[in-house]
Amino acid sequence: MAYELYYWPGIQGRGEFVRLALEEAGVDYIDIARDPNGEDEAVAALMAALEADDIAHPPFAPPFLKDGDIIIGQTAAILLYLGDRHALAPSDPVQRLWVHQIQLTIADLVSEAHDSHHPLGGDLYFEEQKPEALRRAKHFREERIPKFLNWFERILARNPGGDAHLAGNTVSYADLSLFQAVDGLLYAFPRSMKALLTKVPRVAALHRTIAQRPRIRAYLDSGRTLAFNEQGIFRHYPELDR
Amino acid sequence: MAYELYYWPGIQGRGEFVRLALEEAGVDYIDIARDPNGEDEAVAALMAALEADDIAHPPFAPPFLKDGDIIIGQTAAILLYLGDRHALAPSDPVQRLWVHQIQLTIADLVSEAHDSHHPLGGDLYFEEQKPEALRRAKHFREERIPKFLNWFERILARNPGGDAHLAGNTVSYADLSLFQAVDGLLYAFPRSMKALLTKVPRVAALHRTIAQRPRIRAYLDSGRTLAFNEQGIFRHYPELDR
Repeated sequence: MAYELYYWPGIQGRGEFVRLALEEAGVDYIDIARDPNGEDEAVAALMAALEADDIAHPPFAPPFLKDGDIIIGQTAAILLYLGDRHALAPSDPVQRLWVHQIQLTIADLVSEAHDSHHPLGGDLYFEEQKPEALRRAKHFREERIPKFLNWFERILARNPGGDAHLAGNTVSYADLSLFQAVDGLLYAFPRSMKALLTKVPRVAALHRTIAQRPRIRAYLDSGRTLAFNEQGIFRHYPELDR
Repeated sequence: MAYELYYWPGIQGRGEFVRLALEEAGVDYIDIARDPNGEDEAVAALMAALEADDIAHPPFAPPFLKDGDIIIGQTAAILLYLGDRHALAPSDPVQRLWVHQIQLTIADLVSEAHDSHHPLGGDLYFEEQKPEALRRAKHFREERIPKFLNWFERILARNPGGDAHLAGNTVSYADLSLFQAVDGLLYAFPRSMKALLTKVPRVAALHRTIAQRPRIRAYLDSGRTLAFNEQGIFRHYPELDR
């Protein structure tokens, strides 16, 4: 039975981290966000699944993945599950937990990327919190992004399996997620990120090489991907990038 | 060999979620934050471990746990590790992942609790972002806390193992963490939380009963715990609670 991925239509968001793992694994999945009947149908299917009162393990929020009777929420938990099943994580328990630890740190970076344009919370539009976003984005660009990037660079440099991967000597879901995080940050903060990436050559190389993996390349060229936009987690507001 | 827990001295913070699991497991551990030579020594030991250039798996931030040669960062990853080793999580893989998924959602709540008093980021004092904190805390109190609490209540109600635990019929690290999160929110937002808890009786009961578990009670009464304060994640600023 094919997996079913539930996520909001119209944005890459956190769902994209799961999609990249599914694509790299080469498995069949139904992307509920891409309902052929349109976005309203996609949202209706999502809400019905989220609010069903017969689900033993109801997710708190999208994305969530259905695998037959099993429903899993939280991006990092979904990837932990897929990593085991599709060789997208090491089988050694210590290495496996290390990849998960990296993923949780990527998740922290992604949350901070969101808060850079919505520091006061998701109930207000960006335009209602722009002065606050300017202050928070400055801190994010100048302090937080470099701290995260330097940590990834250090991990890559120290990996006994080689600096092409965050852990081991084959691709893991954390590599795919770091590609996506860097891609999103390049979209949101092109000026800052282009300068920062020159200082973390291994991170920049990983971003390039993941995009050229055959299944990822095919997915990115498939027409099934959405462009980044100003409804998602990574948003390009030029005033936040200077 | 005893575990070593590395965390900032002076606050409960994210370290406390790990401490509760170690205490419930009844295992020996060295709490680096409680260095007998004082807080400066504790911070020096923490920084030395964080910045050592011979660590294969360097943590991004505290807390992290040393188990011999193994170093694990990210609170949820530490708990995943301890849960397996000390029967603080179900052994069935689907249930085990469910407990982890709950933990990741608790982690999201904890991050939002922090951001309620520091919406513009950790580089500014609370006093420098008070108007912004007032707006964000209102949204947190009125929308986000209820959404999280209702989700925990629903999970407890649906647990086939009984509504005394989030999953299964014995205590898990997620139960301990929910206790800690509720305890912190009661400290930070006493007025709002007392009203909210009347609507989620199972969550309120779990908060009471976890505190009465023999090892947790002994820990809370041991004199080794720190009180919540205005340096930690959960802070009581009365103006944010009305």
